[in-house]
Amino acid sequence: MSKSAEKKSYGRVRFAANLRAARLAAGLSQEDLAVRAGFHRTYVSQVERGLTNVTIDNACRLAEFLGIDVAMLFSEPSATTDPSSR
Amino acid sequence: MSKSAEKKSYGRVRFAANLRAARLAAGLSQEDLAVRAGFHRTYVSQVERGLTNVTIDNACRLAEFLGIDVAMLFSEPSATTDPSSR
Repeated sequence: MSKSAEKKSYGRVRFAANLRAARLAAGLSQEDLAVRAGFHRTYVSQVERGLTNVTIDNACRLAEFLGIDVAMLFSEPSATTDPSSR
Repeated sequence: MSKSAEKKSYGRVRFAANLRAARLAAGLSQEDLAVRAGFHRTYVSQVERGLTNVTIDNACRLAEFLGIDVAMLFSEPSATTDPSSR
């Protein structure tokens, strides 16, 4: 259960960066997003540090609360910052 | 632990369809892909039926063995069938 010891996949690194960018774009704090989406208040912080191996269902839940498509959270970071790609 | 009782998120449904399409395009059986990627031989079958809430790390592992980007597995199915989108 040692989360910090897990290897970080490229998907996990991307997801972390994309989630942070989308959250900031929505003007939400980590705790705001976590609580609104029904997670523990520290969950988003852990995800944005790549410490959590997020599941598909939770990825969808986060995306829904951010008003974006779940695929955006797995895209290359450069694509996420381009609003026209949505 | 009742997998069949879990709600299927739209991401899970998409992932299942995209994984199947990419696997067939690669000419692999469900068991071939599972074993090559280091999963139990029934894992891919369960994922393709939307019964498994796949994690980011496992999604990356499957994508790598299929030679595709993990984002493809979360995209809308129509996008997956277009090779030019890679």
